[in-house]
Amino acid sequence: MPEQVDQLIHAEWIIPVVPENQVLDSHSLAVKGGRIEAILPTAQAKSRYQAVHETPLPGQALMPGLINAHTHAAMALLRGLADDLPLMTWLNEHIWPAEAKWISEEFIHDGTQLAMAEMLLSGTTCFNDMYFFPDITGRAADSAGIRSVLGLIAIDFPSAWACDGDDYLHKGLQVHDQFRANPLIHTAFAPHAPYSVGNPVLERIRVLADELEIPIHMHVHETHDEIVQGLQHHDTRPMSRLHALGLLSPSLAAVHMTHLEQQEIEIFAASGAHVVHCPESNLKLASGFCPVSELLEADINVALGTDGAASNNDLDMFSEMRTAALLAKGVGGNASALPAAGALSMATINGARALGLHQETGSLESGKSADMIAVDLNRVHTQPVYHPISQLVYAAGREQVTHVWVAGRLLVSDGALTTLDVAKLNARASHWGERILAADVHT
Amino acid sequence: MPEQVDQLIHAEWIIPVVPENQVLDSHSLAVKGGRIEAILPTAQAKSRYQAVHETPLPGQALMPGLINAHTHAAMALLRGLADDLPLMTWLNEHIWPAEAKWISEEFIHDGTQLAMAEMLLSGTTCFNDMYFFPDITGRAADSAGIRSVLGLIAIDFPSAWACDGDDYLHKGLQVHDQFRANPLIHTAFAPHAPYSVGNPVLERIRVLADELEIPIHMHVHETHDEIVQGLQHHDTRPMSRLHALGLLSPSLAAVHMTHLEQQEIEIFAASGAHVVHCPESNLKLASGFCPVSELLEADINVALGTDGAASNNDLDMFSEMRTAALLAKGVGGNASALPAAGALSMATINGARALGLHQETGSLESGKSADMIAVDLNRVHTQPVYHPISQLVYAAGREQVTHVWVAGRLLVSDGALTTLDVAKLNARASHWGERILAADVHT
Repeated sequence: MPEQVDQLIHAEWIIPVVPENQVLDSHSLAVKGGRIEAILPTAQAKSRYQAVHETPLPGQALMPGLINAHTHAAMALLRGLADDLPLMTWLNEHIWPAEAKWISEEFIHDGTQLAMAEMLLSGTTCFNDMYFFPDITGRAADSAGIRSVLGLIAIDFPSAWACDGDDYLHKGLQVHDQFRANPLIHTAFAPHAPYSVGNPVLERIRVLADELEIPIHMHVHETHDEIVQGLQHHDTRPMSRLHALGLLSPSLAAVHMTHLEQQEIEIFAASGAHVVHCPESNLKLASGFCPVSELLEADINVALGTDGAASNNDLDMFSEMRTAALLAKGVGGNASALPAAGALSMATINGARALGLHQETGSLESGKSADMIAVDLNRVHTQPVYHPISQLVYAAGREQVTHVWVAGRLLVSDGALTTLDVAKLNARASHWGERILAADVHT
Repeated sequence: MPEQVDQLIHAEWIIPVVPENQVLDSHSLAVKGGRIEAILPTAQAKSRYQAVHETPLPGQALMPGLINAHTHAAMALLRGLADDLPLMTWLNEHIWPAEAKWISEEFIHDGTQLAMAEMLLSGTTCFNDMYFFPDITGRAADSAGIRSVLGLIAIDFPSAWACDGDDYLHKGLQVHDQFRANPLIHTAFAPHAPYSVGNPVLERIRVLADELEIPIHMHVHETHDEIVQGLQHHDTRPMSRLHALGLLSPSLAAVHMTHLEQQEIEIFAASGAHVVHCPESNLKLASGFCPVSELLEADINVALGTDGAASNNDLDMFSEMRTAALLAKGVGGNASALPAAGALSMATINGARALGLHQETGSLESGKSADMIAVDLNRVHTQPVYHPISQLVYAAGREQVTHVWVAGRLLVSDGALTTLDVAKLNARASHWGERILAADVHT
């Protein structure tokens, strides 16, 4: 008697990511109760299982959904507002004034929906967010069906969301409690950056993160200026300040990590903390280079993020993965640095590790949540297929994502969203864009 | 009485590229006899002209077709054969053996067709090629309707195409004569590189290029090793050897140009020669960085190319344009370096200038050939549209190209090729792939 499952997906190639660099030809994946039941040769799958739904994927690769380990989703509404400007002009004269004027529950809702539509269509099944009104982000994510990690943001400046350090933490803890029973909505403390959060708030977060067993998501060493400021105000580089505060631990996902000294890499490696590399944002803002090869050699787990769409200007993890692989070679002067399979791991399982979700997602393994995507390689620009992983990283694009599942639920089918309405989102975005542009006095 | 034209295209935005950074809202472009007749506000266009065909493009940008100023089109068949390897291992153990075994008229035909399909679908209307059997490339290009510059390749090594320097030049001149009456097929001498072509052949090319008034297309300073070898074999750096041979002139399109000294930039600038920047190939092969900002400051014309698909691994000029803009900022440590409009010029009019085709193509101006593309910005990842040029460079992708015209002829319509059969090309590519992979002993 064949065993009953919910879905059987028959793919030309299955790329489980764990183990790294494995490609399974003509295999099938069985889903039951939202979880991966088994991965096995298609012939065996057809005799062993009977499925409610069968999805044949000829010429397609089935792989884990991509994990965007650092973004500010709602900033999608500020995409391209002010490009090609020095970082401080960009922030002081455009982004911060726009945020001060426009951030509201409605802005966060519409911006997060736009971002989630983009992320799902481009194969991202989980995003790690840092922005204001994380409760609104959580409700939008819940409604869309995507997996998310809500950043419980803390910053020493008032915003429409909270007025001071205590208020940010208080509201953050409420958000944590609000979503704790939701299997797809996770939380992390998100102190903004060393230069924008003082020691008292960081010390409380250290204790609270231990108690609640959730990660800490923080910008660290984004620019050289941040380091200079750290030396001026705290008599030490930001990394050593965080070390002294006890923040370097396996709970920390440190975003950006440019301008690192060898000793800092060693201390960071010993701590078990994670790096989130954002190559396109670092390039666009001329922030500096994250020494990816050295970090990997030091056995540091390196995940990948797009950053917000205001500094990228998209949330496309396929592009980010490719840029990461290319840039590591260029910066390292070594064409063998960060091979395709390594870049694919950074965009999937390494992200799950950085967020403490590696038991649940980030690879195709029995028992894990069925968070996965299908990518059509039968396009002129990914032919011929010598090595599917090479094609996925170096030649494929977001437009080749045909199907996206989160916990077994189909959120993109044949390239179309099932839970979000693109026409409506574009109309809302356009409406916001007109108002924001009219108020952007420096344009 | 309205004037009769062949086509009227009504776009949400027209971006002529010349003048740089101009965006014309709600304008129309009239085409007559394959040439741009006029660009004017849509309301005026509708009263002044009567057209056989009208194409409304709501939410779309109409812009010049992209010019890929350096590629080896037929190498599309070797895409992803051997990635993440040091340059010399890649060449010696994979690419050169595969070329020695497989290069033939059939390989060039099928590979060029695959590449042209990819280029057209991603908005490229003109490519500058360097490869064996340029006559086959020319016939394939003529049949597809794309504009091309055939490299009359010369190299001091025998190949399936020619046996020695004289033979390469002789066959190259025949190719030049064969296509001289074809308005869409141009030619350029293509001496491979300083390290692979000796002085006698370079001296003859210098004279012939002057006589025929066609450009010279050459790899120059691709890697640091090339410079070391130049010093060993010629007692001078490659650039100064080319200078002594009289090759630095407005006829030269020098590809790659990494590891440059300040004095070399000055000499190059004074010569009026052009640079073709290939950022993704330079990164992938860890060749070094082309100092784009310094070149632009020295008033050197910088065009853009993808290089062959074996070292990129696609022929996507949207991606190349974005990488160029991002990398210039990262390498220059300046977020204002190479703004979006500058990157767009590099991918269009600067390419035309480097190829001596700037009277004919590269911008939307009355009298020029109607080589142009429409790009749909009405997608979630390019909304909202604050500045269309920013969205085109930093957020848009090849998949948003809906229409492509060369000399007024529609080659891509609603995202589908009109002169090439994708299913057939993919099948041919797959057939080649299987044979080549089986023979790639090092895989």
